[in-house]
Amino acid sequence: MNFGIIGYGYWGPNIVRNLLTIDGAKVLAIADTNPAARHRARRLYPGIEITADTEAVLRSPKIDAIAVISPVWTHYELAKAALENGKHVFVEKPFTSQSEQGKELIELAARKGLTIMVDHTFLFTGAVRKIMQLVDEGTLGKLYYYDSTRINLGLFQHDINVVWDLAPHDLSIMDYLFKQMPEAVVATGQSHLNGHEDIAFLTLYFSDQMIAHINVNWISPVKMRTTLIGGEKRMLVWNDLVPDEKLRVYDRGVDVTTNDVEEVYSRLVSYRTGDMWAPQLEQGEALRKELAYFIECAQNGRRPINDGEAGLRVVKMLEAASRSLEKRGEMVPCC
Amino acid sequence: MNFGIIGYGYWGPNIVRNLLTIDGAKVLAIADTNPAARHRARRLYPGIEITADTEAVLRSPKIDAIAVISPVWTHYELAKAALENGKHVFVEKPFTSQSEQGKELIELAARKGLTIMVDHTFLFTGAVRKIMQLVDEGTLGKLYYYDSTRINLGLFQHDINVVWDLAPHDLSIMDYLFKQMPEAVVATGQSHLNGHEDIAFLTLYFSDQMIAHINVNWISPVKMRTTLIGGEKRMLVWNDLVPDEKLRVYDRGVDVTTNDVEEVYSRLVSYRTGDMWAPQLEQGEALRKELAYFIECAQNGRRPINDGEAGLRVVKMLEAASRSLEKRGEMVPCC
Amino acid sequence: MNFGIIGYGYWGPNIVRNLLTIDGAKVLAIADTNPAARHRARRLYPGIEITADTEAVLRSPKIDAIAVISPVWTHYELAKAALENGKHVFVEKPFTSQSEQGKELIELAARKGLTIMVDHTFLFTGAVRKIMQLVDEGTLGKLYYYDSTRINLGLFQHDINVVWDLAPHDLSIMDYLFKQMPEAVVATGQSHLNGHEDIAFLTLYFSDQMIAHINVNWISPVKMRTTLIGGEKRMLVWNDLVPDEKLRVYDRGVDVTTNDVEEVYSRLVSYRTGDMWAPQLEQGEALRKELAYFIECAQNGRRPINDGEAGLRVVKMLEAASRSLEKRGEMVPCC
Amino acid sequence: MNFGIIGYGYWGPNIVRNLLTIDGAKVLAIADTNPAARHRARRLYPGIEITADTEAVLRSPKIDAIAVISPVWTHYELAKAALENGKHVFVEKPFTSQSEQGKELIELAARKGLTIMVDHTFLFTGAVRKIMQLVDEGTLGKLYYYDSTRINLGLFQHDINVVWDLAPHDLSIMDYLFKQMPEAVVATGQSHLNGHEDIAFLTLYFSDQMIAHINVNWISPVKMRTTLIGGEKRMLVWNDLVPDEKLRVYDRGVDVTTNDVEEVYSRLVSYRTGDMWAPQLEQGEALRKELAYFIECAQNGRRPINDGEAGLRVVKMLEAASRSLEKRGEMVPCC
Repeated sequence: MNFGIIGYGYWGPNIVRNLLTIDGAKVLAIADTNPAARHRARRLYPGIEITADTEAVLRSPKIDAIAVISPVWTHYELAKAALENGKHVFVEKPFTSQSEQGKELIELAARKGLTIMVDHTFLFTGAVRKIMQLVDEGTLGKLYYYDSTRINLGLFQHDINVVWDLAPHDLSIMDYLFKQMPEAVVATGQSHLNGHEDIAFLTLYFSDQMIAHINVNWISPVKMRTTLIGGEKRMLVWNDLVPDEKLRVYDRGVDVTTNDVEEVYSRLVSYRTGDMWAPQLEQGEALRKELAYFIECAQNGRRPINDGEAGLRVVKMLEAASRSLEKRGEMVPCC
Repeated sequence: MNFGIIGYGYWGPNIVRNLLTIDGAKVLAIADTNPAARHRARRLYPGIEITADTEAVLRSPKIDAIAVISPVWTHYELAKAALENGKHVFVEKPFTSQSEQGKELIELAARKGLTIMVDHTFLFTGAVRKIMQLVDEGTLGKLYYYDSTRINLGLFQHDINVVWDLAPHDLSIMDYLFKQMPEAVVATGQSHLNGHEDIAFLTLYFSDQMIAHINVNWISPVKMRTTLIGGEKRMLVWNDLVPDEKLRVYDRGVDVTTNDVEEVYSRLVSYRTGDMWAPQLEQGEALRKELAYFIECAQNGRRPINDGEAGLRVVKMLEAASRSLEKRGEMVPCC
Repeated sequence: MNFGIIGYGYWGPNIVRNLLTIDGAKVLAIADTNPAARHRARRLYPGIEITADTEAVLRSPKIDAIAVISPVWTHYELAKAALENGKHVFVEKPFTSQSEQGKELIELAARKGLTIMVDHTFLFTGAVRKIMQLVDEGTLGKLYYYDSTRINLGLFQHDINVVWDLAPHDLSIMDYLFKQMPEAVVATGQSHLNGHEDIAFLTLYFSDQMIAHINVNWISPVKMRTTLIGGEKRMLVWNDLVPDEKLRVYDRGVDVTTNDVEEVYSRLVSYRTGDMWAPQLEQGEALRKELAYFIECAQNGRRPINDGEAGLRVVKMLEAASRSLEKRGEMVPCC
Repeated sequence: MNFGIIGYGYWGPNIVRNLLTIDGAKVLAIADTNPAARHRARRLYPGIEITADTEAVLRSPKIDAIAVISPVWTHYELAKAALENGKHVFVEKPFTSQSEQGKELIELAARKGLTIMVDHTFLFTGAVRKIMQLVDEGTLGKLYYYDSTRINLGLFQHDINVVWDLAPHDLSIMDYLFKQMPEAVVATGQSHLNGHEDIAFLTLYFSDQMIAHINVNWISPVKMRTTLIGGEKRMLVWNDLVPDEKLRVYDRGVDVTTNDVEEVYSRLVSYRTGDMWAPQLEQGEALRKELAYFIECAQNGRRPINDGEAGLRVVKMLEAASRSLEKRGEMVPCC
């Protein structure tokens, strides 16, 4: 499969580097309007065509798939052009700036028989794959909550706020785990510097007493990537910043020892504490696995777990969060 | 100063143990309606009167001050009786179940010339005293946010939810640091077991773009006590669970490099990263310092920083949070 | 069982506090030659006789057992007097200053039918009990090494060096786990301040390729209490400073994949990495369990695991280490 | 400067990748006898000559410098051939298998006016540069000790033991900091698997009461890279495994409060505890800086801090450690 890459800024180089190690994948062209980006690409990859002419790449008959690794406001136009030219599309998250655009792209791809994959890279990490397995096999029991802290100093985005920048990671993971859309979103936050919120807190209400909470912050002195998932049977903590034992599963929980459903306030609640267990995780770079999966899906017409629909659901949650944020936490129903 | 103690459950023994080491303080009587609690007290303190007769302690003419260390719904009645009997009152947090009760107690104490102190113990820890100093001296600069995570497994309360149980710690600290009431509170959360919320998230909006966020959880597999405070000049992380270097001050922040106020979205934002510094903290048990301060305030008619008014402000924030929580995050103005 | 306590300095208060909570144990008298220590004891325990007269306590006919909680150079004389007066002896570690003294005390106790227990408290912690179980049940497989880091700033002892102060903890644990005396000891170190070594490193060679290493240091800026135990099947890390998950058992190791014993240097070695597991540990204060066990052993004539012989083995290792240290690491055979 | 690379195994790719980003550096050829290594190199660098013919690279008239990134037993022959062909030499640590070989290479380079640099990469990390500065400027005061733990599971070497594999890092850093050779080395350890020691402990005695200790281990379940350096004025901990705040400087120490030098054992020792400070460290990849420095030294005839002499000192310490290890800790004078 021959790839054209649109955008060689922060993330593009990782896409190229990984594609080069996948058998059967080739990178024919890299387009970037920034001369400095083109210079960096040329130095490392003298054998690849490096160009400022995005149009030419999108149209090149030798190219089978386009990777759109540019700012979110450009995704719709670029992906649309790629699909119209008969190319499969691998697109950076978030999928699009507006849910309407996402819907249109999904329909266009369906009409053309092409594959869209949204780069929800975390779904391909060893940690998240193991979490998926633990949830799907019922090891955690019924889910109670998903609570994530994703904070650091910078990188400030100048076109989007911290929610659109950092929350898609958690929204895409949570979307997989909960397998339902939230009923409503409550988002609070504040902007201090450039008019975009730099700190924000999302609560997502789901049916069945499930709740999710996401804390995103660009002005934190320390970097944290910690997610707690609580279930009826077991609970886990995923710390993505440690080199080993990123995932810790606790045989801990709460037991309600009376069954008198009517008398909830008088229920006796007791704690159960047991062993902790850090399962060995699958190794290997997540992005490489995701790209290999993209190629396989595109070639076999298989629907990826991170397809356009998954990308669209994340965009809808972001839109609801934005509306809630504007009104200082007003509950916004989600679709 | 002669003390009578009402309540010898979880926290009462710490009050007694600390009072015994303060010169000039005596514990004359401990009242508890639970025979097991009285047995424990008798074993350790054969010289102190241990009784089930709360009334007698409240009225005893030899007693100068009453420590009310009982469930929150009993605070109002007990504190009122103590004040009416001419005793100073040291009362567990939260001050009262309702703000009206708090107001009444404040007025009663004022009329009687008696001291009320609400047990906001954290204000007397080395870490919080240093934070107060850093904020008051301007080391952090204008405050941007206060963000606290206070989670653990249990201890489930059967009369109150997790907000009333764990949030008063942060609300009392934040109240001191921000020196203003929040404009509004947004609270989200969920109950899974006994009808009281066991997980909740509070956002408090202040004037001047200041924002606070508090994450409280009784069903977390791990214990966390981590607070981030971001300021224009510096930021800090307070981890109360580590034995050393609980407080880390970061010479990090964000600089806006254009002054064109109109064009906020195009402002250039740049990061400043510098050294980290963990100041040596004052040693000694916070509760002992607080009790010594109570005695001094009561004896000299000095108004404590954690007086009834401070306790009342915390109760008002809790009430606003409760109202917001019921309506799934509706913004509730705070007084 | 009625106790007399000799020494109410740093550790004595913990002995008294724990004895007071054990049914059937009574503390009749506390002797200390330091008036400040006696003052502290009197304040807390008005019902106990507090005295400077050690002799009287040792001879009191009402006392069944003496706890010797004084500097090591006094252990021999005090324990001897206690045994001669027919009292069981609970003695602080290290057992005695010289192995000859230890032997004499063991013989005296045997003649009198009395119990000696050396306060190797760590053997009664949840962490060490679990380690003992893992080793005894073969979960770790054949042991390869024991490597402990036990460092902090102070407390400088003025009568002994850092080896005699800190190493007994590890030597007593290792003595239990390896169940053999080391063949030889190599000790290196340095004194910088008061003539006693303040930093030292012990290597103990055992048969069967087992090796132990202990790093002790009074002039470390940070406190560390970390022990690694490597076995053929599994390995563990014990970090005594964390509140939870002190013990982590790793399903990791090394496999030798050729059996050609002659050709050791060409053996293929491969790594095995698997899950980590942090077993739930027994709760409760170790010292309380140890004291209850002392009472039970003394009353039933049962031989404690931390008897005089165990204490003597530790003293012999300390003596060998001291001789090696003087000669800058010369290998000293151990008994 | 045109480079030829000998060896494209584990470390070689890092050398090549960094050279490609240095202005003025070119990689003309990579030689490796392993076809798999050559295949990997060809895939990434179609523009570079990849060959099995080491001789041809060593002799090529277009090449100015040879990087020897092969097993230690090959260093002497390869570096000698490179120097004889008039090329500067960048050689992996440890410099040579025997100190005699190192001396010969140093003399040969001096005769030919060529530069030898031994790859002591750590000297170019932000953390070690800052430590060097703190020591050189006297911030730590007179040094008391250097104590390093460098342990992990694997990678087993089949030609050398764990001391020759892991200790050179610490020996090269310590050599820079202490600026003197040790008086004697004591090394203990054990082999469990393939005949080479897989766990070892080095003590190095220096004049002036300075002491160093290095704990190296290939069969540890966890990876640790922690170094403590204690000085009279301040102490530091360097943890190389954390992403931020790798270096922590503690304003802690010990004060001797009596000046009676004769009476060392009765000196009063008191502790000083103060703030901790984590200085911002220089960013950027150490290997890139080292290679740029190599080019600058070679071009200007400047003597590198990590020259052949520095490499030779490390080899001499390793030889002394090996002799001590064989005799189970016998003290071996160092040169």
